[in-house]
Amino acid sequence: MQILLKINENFAKLPANYLFAEIDSRVKKFSQQHPEMEILRLGIGDVTRPLPEAVTDAMSKAAQELSHKETFRGYGPENGYLFLRKAISEHDYKQRGIDIEPDEVFISDGAKSDTGSIGDIFSVDNTVAVCDPVYPVYVDTNVMAGRAGNYVKGKGFDKIVYMPCRRENGFMPQIPERHADMIYLCFPNNPTGIGIKKPELKKWVDYALENKAVILYDAAYEAFITETDMPHSIFEIDGAKKCAIEFRSFSKTAGFTGVRCAYTVIPKELQFGSVYLNHLWGRRQSTKMNGVSYPVQRAAEAVFTPEGQAGIKENIACYHENARIIREGLSKAGFETYGGINSPYVWMKVPDGFTSWEFFDSLLSKAGVVGTPGSGFGPCGEGYFRLTAFNTKENTLKAVQRITDTFAK
Amino acid sequence: MQILLKINENFAKLPANYLFAEIDSRVKKFSQQHPEMEILRLGIGDVTRPLPEAVTDAMSKAAQELSHKETFRGYGPENGYLFLRKAISEHDYKQRGIDIEPDEVFISDGAKSDTGSIGDIFSVDNTVAVCDPVYPVYVDTNVMAGRAGNYVKGKGFDKIVYMPCRRENGFMPQIPERHADMIYLCFPNNPTGIGIKKPELKKWVDYALENKAVILYDAAYEAFITETDMPHSIFEIDGAKKCAIEFRSFSKTAGFTGVRCAYTVIPKELQFGSVYLNHLWGRRQSTKMNGVSYPVQRAAEAVFTPEGQAGIKENIACYHENARIIREGLSKAGFETYGGINSPYVWMKVPDGFTSWEFFDSLLSKAGVVGTPGSGFGPCGEGYFRLTAFNTKENTLKAVQRITDTFAK
Repeated sequence: MQILLKINENFAKLPANYLFAEIDSRVKKFSQQHPEMEILRLGIGDVTRPLPEAVTDAMSKAAQELSHKETFRGYGPENGYLFLRKAISEHDYKQRGIDIEPDEVFISDGAKSDTGSIGDIFSVDNTVAVCDPVYPVYVDTNVMAGRAGNYVKGKGFDKIVYMPCRRENGFMPQIPERHADMIYLCFPNNPTGIGIKKPELKKWVDYALENKAVILYDAAYEAFITETDMPHSIFEIDGAKKCAIEFRSFSKTAGFTGVRCAYTVIPKELQFGSVYLNHLWGRRQSTKMNGVSYPVQRAAEAVFTPEGQAGIKENIACYHENARIIREGLSKAGFETYGGINSPYVWMKVPDGFTSWEFFDSLLSKAGVVGTPGSGFGPCGEGYFRLTAFNTKENTLKAVQRITDTFAK
Repeated sequence: MQILLKINENFAKLPANYLFAEIDSRVKKFSQQHPEMEILRLGIGDVTRPLPEAVTDAMSKAAQELSHKETFRGYGPENGYLFLRKAISEHDYKQRGIDIEPDEVFISDGAKSDTGSIGDIFSVDNTVAVCDPVYPVYVDTNVMAGRAGNYVKGKGFDKIVYMPCRRENGFMPQIPERHADMIYLCFPNNPTGIGIKKPELKKWVDYALENKAVILYDAAYEAFITETDMPHSIFEIDGAKKCAIEFRSFSKTAGFTGVRCAYTVIPKELQFGSVYLNHLWGRRQSTKMNGVSYPVQRAAEAVFTPEGQAGIKENIACYHENARIIREGLSKAGFETYGGINSPYVWMKVPDGFTSWEFFDSLLSKAGVVGTPGSGFGPCGEGYFRLTAFNTKENTLKAVQRITDTFAK
């Protein structure tokens, strides 16, 4: 028998395309066939408003430092420069009364990288729990690692614990019956746009503490929270430092989707057996990456200046206004909508008789509007559709008008 | 029995510290105790010369684009912008007569990330072969993944095939007796500084083709090649497109250690069973990361302008001159030295009676010079020491003087 290099067979269990790549390809095909149609994109969750000048000026200045002998910098610390870790600790935590120190903050190039790679420090024998619908990265990366088991059509992967989020439970995941070791939670939620209140989140912290599980808490959308009783960080909940890792990003908060900067918080006291996860992730990061670009870290630092804060708040206010336009416009026209208050995402029920993908195709061909089919996020997303607030106000108004003109009862 | 989240137990098999973190900590301790001593760092392979202005200007300009509505960019393509992939394909391959297309190039934030994560697409059941001594990332990341087996003191990991590179074989790895599936090669070599000639590299390509193995070829130092019969890319060898992945970086080539940009080349025809690795890596990357910072990619593009090329060639010439100073200075004083001709690294034999770490400590305390102990790169590195050409000419001259004053016979 010929010995042959073996590939990671888990990849064969993945859907052939990443969700947004599939959408891209359908949109591209349509617009080639119909070049006259103006396409309005409310699909992918990508920001569109320019960065505050304070941020780009900081980045330019840092770039210029690198062409001078006196200010040149080579490798930075793998876990990020202290100036940025301090700014995050101070602004995002201490000022909210949460005691997170700079050495509990790990700077990275994105929350997708961090949520996608965090599994590296855990055994492949753990049971993973995810919401359904869910951001595909949590599932796909666990499929690759071999934690997901086999795909059963219409049901999902047989080793993953799915926590259905439906209209009937207010799109809130319920404590699962089967034991779970690694629980992915994302609030405000992608894709449903629903936020979580403190007592509800406390249930999860209590469950994790009692069951020796870890919560992988994605707070990438915390800047969109408008209601006062919603936690911006899981570390606002007592006990969370003993069971949770938090992921945050400058992408949606500060318009950094093209600049690339995020961070992960692992409290020093977070421990399983004799192992401290802060140390373990530090070891993983220092072995598998060489830190984030210096000018990018200076840009992120500038987000915390008064000018930076004013700029990003103005941007978020615009996205909130777009979310309101979608939510209220569709509601008035008789559509069922959720989210959009503490989130840039509105989750709408598709008209009767359509599946999510049928509605996607129909909306694209009849109205030239692109959204994301709910079923792309999991079986319980079937019958729903995600619209994002990241386009311009003008296009958002136009898109809502086209949807209601084409599909309202 | 209490069910408990399991961590990745392979991490416990790693050495407690990453090599360069250990060196850092010893140097820090020493300089706190001896603040009067001027320390000369020829340890970590980090560049020191400023970037060409063409590069930092391109980065600044791209940063400024992001604060204007008309030129703002959000998410870029996960595998990198076409402008950069085209520039690489053209300049680094086609101009050398190698047919590598832009869609065979994957842009990333560093060769450490790429060589560290490439294992994701391969089964953990493969046998890994590495040179000894070796860049620690290849070994450590395979330990984490579970391919290394257990550590046997003085011998290394029991599942890894080590290929000794000693004086006796000209520091060239020999085809191993045990079958290997994933073969890591790095030329010009880190740490020995030795380059490989075409007929020698062809042996490896032939072996891989015959044994259905993959060569993971790290060419991060190709820009330092001075001899004409040395391949800059493994794809100069017939058949390599059917068995090799190549890693390249702007770090050492263009001074990007703090800017962060690299790329991996996977030919479209590289196939195992029915699986194309180009497709597989694309799936991995699009699931686990969101592309490289846009201004960073513009900076990398500017490396290929005439001004960029002139600037980086000047920098490399300075490093070559430093390597010559080390090599010739130590040789004249009676030390055995290797490398430093096609590489920024000089590999020296430590004086009789010292281990690598003993020489490290002695050199630090008596001469204030920092290098890297050869044994940190593997058992066969014992008795050797790596010096880098990345300091200033002045400091390099001073360091060589101090070494010869303190240790010459």
